[in-house]
Amino acid sequence: MYRTHTCGELRIADIDKNVTLSGWVQRIRNLGGMTFIDIRDRYGLTQLVVDPDSDKTILSAINNLGREYVVKVKGKVTERSNKNLNIDTGEIEIVIEDLEIINSSEHPPFTIEDDTDGGDELRMKFRYLDLRRNKVRNNLELRHQMSIEIRNYLNNNNFLEVETPVLIKSTPEGARDFIVPSRVNRGNFYALPQSPQVFKQLLMVGGFDRYFQIVKCFRDEDLRADRQPEFTQVDCEMSFVDRDDILALFEDLSKHLFEKIKGVKIVDDYPRISYKDAMENYGSDKPDIRFQMTFKDLTSLVQDKGFKVFDNSEYIGGICAKGCAGYSRKELDNLRAFVKKPQVGANGLVYVKYNQDGSFKSSVDKFFSADQLKEWALEFDAQPGDLLLILAGKKDNTLRALCELRLEMGERMGLRDPKVFAPLWVVDFPLLEWDEETKRYYAMHHPFTAPKLEDRGVLDTAPEKVRADAYDFVVNGVELGGGSVRIHDSALQHKVFKALGFTKEEADNQFGFLMDAFKYGAPPHGGIAFGFDRWVSLLAGEESIRDVIAFPKNNAARDVMTDSPSAVSYDQLQELGIKLSPDSQKE
Amino acid sequence: MYRTHTCGELRIADIDKNVTLSGWVQRIRNLGGMTFIDIRDRYGLTQLVVDPDSDKTILSAINNLGREYVVKVKGKVTERSNKNLNIDTGEIEIVIEDLEIINSSEHPPFTIEDDTDGGDELRMKFRYLDLRRNKVRNNLELRHQMSIEIRNYLNNNNFLEVETPVLIKSTPEGARDFIVPSRVNRGNFYALPQSPQVFKQLLMVGGFDRYFQIVKCFRDEDLRADRQPEFTQVDCEMSFVDRDDILALFEDLSKHLFEKIKGVKIVDDYPRISYKDAMENYGSDKPDIRFQMTFKDLTSLVQDKGFKVFDNSEYIGGICAKGCAGYSRKELDNLRAFVKKPQVGANGLVYVKYNQDGSFKSSVDKFFSADQLKEWALEFDAQPGDLLLILAGKKDNTLRALCELRLEMGERMGLRDPKVFAPLWVVDFPLLEWDEETKRYYAMHHPFTAPKLEDRGVLDTAPEKVRADAYDFVVNGVELGGGSVRIHDSALQHKVFKALGFTKEEADNQFGFLMDAFKYGAPPHGGIAFGFDRWVSLLAGEESIRDVIAFPKNNAARDVMTDSPSAVSYDQLQELGIKLSPDSQKE
Repeated sequence: MYRTHTCGELRIADIDKNVTLSGWVQRIRNLGGMTFIDIRDRYGLTQLVVDPDSDKTILSAINNLGREYVVKVKGKVTERSNKNLNIDTGEIEIVIEDLEIINSSEHPPFTIEDDTDGGDELRMKFRYLDLRRNKVRNNLELRHQMSIEIRNYLNNNNFLEVETPVLIKSTPEGARDFIVPSRVNRGNFYALPQSPQVFKQLLMVGGFDRYFQIVKCFRDEDLRADRQPEFTQVDCEMSFVDRDDILALFEDLSKHLFEKIKGVKIVDDYPRISYKDAMENYGSDKPDIRFQMTFKDLTSLVQDKGFKVFDNSEYIGGICAKGCAGYSRKELDNLRAFVKKPQVGANGLVYVKYNQDGSFKSSVDKFFSADQLKEWALEFDAQPGDLLLILAGKKDNTLRALCELRLEMGERMGLRDPKVFAPLWVVDFPLLEWDEETKRYYAMHHPFTAPKLEDRGVLDTAPEKVRADAYDFVVNGVELGGGSVRIHDSALQHKVFKALGFTKEEADNQFGFLMDAFKYGAPPHGGIAFGFDRWVSLLAGEESIRDVIAFPKNNAARDVMTDSPSAVSYDQLQELGIKLSPDSQKE
Repeated sequence: MYRTHTCGELRIADIDKNVTLSGWVQRIRNLGGMTFIDIRDRYGLTQLVVDPDSDKTILSAINNLGREYVVKVKGKVTERSNKNLNIDTGEIEIVIEDLEIINSSEHPPFTIEDDTDGGDELRMKFRYLDLRRNKVRNNLELRHQMSIEIRNYLNNNNFLEVETPVLIKSTPEGARDFIVPSRVNRGNFYALPQSPQVFKQLLMVGGFDRYFQIVKCFRDEDLRADRQPEFTQVDCEMSFVDRDDILALFEDLSKHLFEKIKGVKIVDDYPRISYKDAMENYGSDKPDIRFQMTFKDLTSLVQDKGFKVFDNSEYIGGICAKGCAGYSRKELDNLRAFVKKPQVGANGLVYVKYNQDGSFKSSVDKFFSADQLKEWALEFDAQPGDLLLILAGKKDNTLRALCELRLEMGERMGLRDPKVFAPLWVVDFPLLEWDEETKRYYAMHHPFTAPKLEDRGVLDTAPEKVRADAYDFVVNGVELGGGSVRIHDSALQHKVFKALGFTKEEADNQFGFLMDAFKYGAPPHGGIAFGFDRWVSLLAGEESIRDVIAFPKNNAARDVMTDSPSAVSYDQLQELGIKLSPDSQKE
């Protein structure tokens, strides 16, 4: 038997017990002849102590020990004279009576400590050692706990977890699909799913009523920051529901998680902000509403007053930074540099200090009187001591730049506490997005999203005005999930396909079997998919989803630990009926 | 709102309630002017009733209804005069006050009933309609319940579910790997995992202590009966355990499932039968022990008595079929035909009837006296009225044929009740298997399986004699899972690689990163993987795993509903840096 207890289990009440523990050597200290060894497992750390008068075989074994050696010890639990109340086992220690080295260890390439000396690449290459660190393991324990809570919550609400296929049909439009050659069906390919969308809708047609799945999805694309080629979704679908039924249920699920996982009880209903309002007030469809500082549109107020920059701008708007009128020239220069960064993209920054004494100081004093600036301040509901920060330019770009500026100010003003969670629903997304390059509309969500009832009348005449019954779940500026009510009526679906510029043939070719299914009594249905990696990283307080994935890939979609992807043999390709193009062989 | 209640919810206590229900039209009957409509959802069936004096719009809507139409009805719950106690809602009916047709349905290609008129292929093509049948849905509900029970059980036992990658390293030996070309790393390929074996061992090195995952695995091979290219495993691994710790825990898990899912309480420890005994007594490493009828080896007893067939056989053995001495000539001929089938492969069948009056009648009366036959009967512990069935030939073949004969007799004698569960562990498998074709040993389980401690001395000298710490979990003749204690010691691992004929380079090339990981303090560990599809189908009482998979593929690895796998465009391949071989293009 390797152990009677784990390394995190023994307490003062266990004193005088004879125990066996196994674990990794964390630290060895020699103090005045006594040797103290900390051994570690997933559950904690326990101190062992060896008397210099111990049996020789024990003493010699201890001389051979090193960090990360695996040992099994037998001994008696005793009370520590020098207690460590920072750890659960800190009141006891084990007086070693027998010690067996189960496995030795080479010197690890970085320290297995909360604060490690290993860099990112090194820790990825030796991920199995990185996984021994509390921080990494805690994240994965949190992930496990969240999946258990989500599953039990949905099970209690009559959802069935159904596994949908991973080897699915490859469609010509699946530009970011991974494809998989079939040996049994030579020359043919499966695709890996970007989401189980079609299958979950088929399950609704099949009468499953409530479906969910925590499931891997795949996207083969150049990786933007913090994306993974394989990622996990909490995928859900319900029948005989409208939008508000869906939002109510998943709002409750998220409240359940906040409470169970973080101990944060949220009583109020989540705000619901329309896409339009989100864009106008926060410049983003995933606003961080831990703080307000919403945009004010100053366009009509400030134009035609002789300041060319404003007069030539489509939009002028700004934010009010409470209590920041004392910002120094250096701080303001710094903010100006920030908004001019290519990622932000503003041309300049106008500031107005509403000083404590009621006077105004601005970067446009030449063009605007104190009375005019007071009018602006009124618009912002500003108080003496506040700072107005104003951007101007093309509307879209300016809203986007203001969004970055607002977040930056929120950061500087300490308004983005990671321990505070501010969830909301963004609703009423546009159904369609116009693409300038291909001169056609694309579905903003996906082609099965239902247009809002009150907008269906203009689907043929003004499709750009049609809003969808689509929604995103946003927390602290992070989009954690999104979904929609689906179209269950073939006639409406064909209308939407038409608005999307699909010919009947194209629609049949891509979605034929789903359209066929809809002929046999499709129920009203809708659903949502949550980005599980992102949800876990939010609750773990991590910046990157890589920190909550056991074996992540890097930004080049490579696993540096196993050195994957890699070349395969000519024979293997031959058997699959494929070969490398000459240009990819050269690489 | 689409419903206040589901179609399976209303009871006599709900009488006089005004309710709204939605569902599919199961049946419409017109009896003496009254119209009765059964509507169905996942939760049950509810009878609606329409008075001939109802509102005209309702009557006209009802005239337009057909099977599988989706409707929403409002009405009052009333007591039925003609109760149907076979269904939970059979005491009530809804008097319709309003009826809305939500969706129409074409006439379904087969009836949506427990006993359907649809053939296999048709039901697969319209799987979304097949899923509406109670039988299919019940199987998937059972699957869901099992996954919930397994997860909660393992969670309560400190197991963490960790997601391992689906896009993994492709190895040259991965003959049955699906491979996935990478767009981002052109000319390189991932593989899909046949199991997460290496990753779960890395998690043990990483100190995760107890891991599990319910996970999709993949195998690209010609499909034997009842295999799927993607299948689901319950994959588990534990540290600081020996074999008996592992068996105890998973035996308890399986008992928990039998009780929770089937209401079957198993108190006794499961039998543990060595591979050797299983082969000698049942001719199979997955014996069905719902009944005994074990083999007796008669070789020494019956040879050299002048019967050439026996004298020229390596092995003569048989079974005793209790109470079957009354078998007619026709029945015996029938059995002889059975054993001579190519799938069974015996040359002939010797029978001995131990008649009720104590006399003997056999097919070898010419060669053996009644006294000799009595000796045989004694060997079997046979009683008057029993029938001995004896096969002779090469030992391996004869054991295999006897196994088939035993199962056939068990079937005929009604000893294989699907409601009875007879689990066992088969242990002490050989470490290695000799392959005549390639003239080398292969790992019977996998190369990381630990040889039994007491056999390690002969690893170099008599590798064929070495038994492994490997085990299979078998129920009713079906192998539901298998696993082993792993090697955690590099020196022993290299010895095993050597016995397997790997050069150091080959071992490094294939398992390098695992061997690297083992240098840093690998703990003793072991685990098991269960075939989840098979486990569900056993508890569902289904013959095929396809019946417990929502969207299965057929024996040609095709999804006939979506027509997958399929051709992909030249452009798509071009982007991935591959092209079709000329011979696969022709297909």
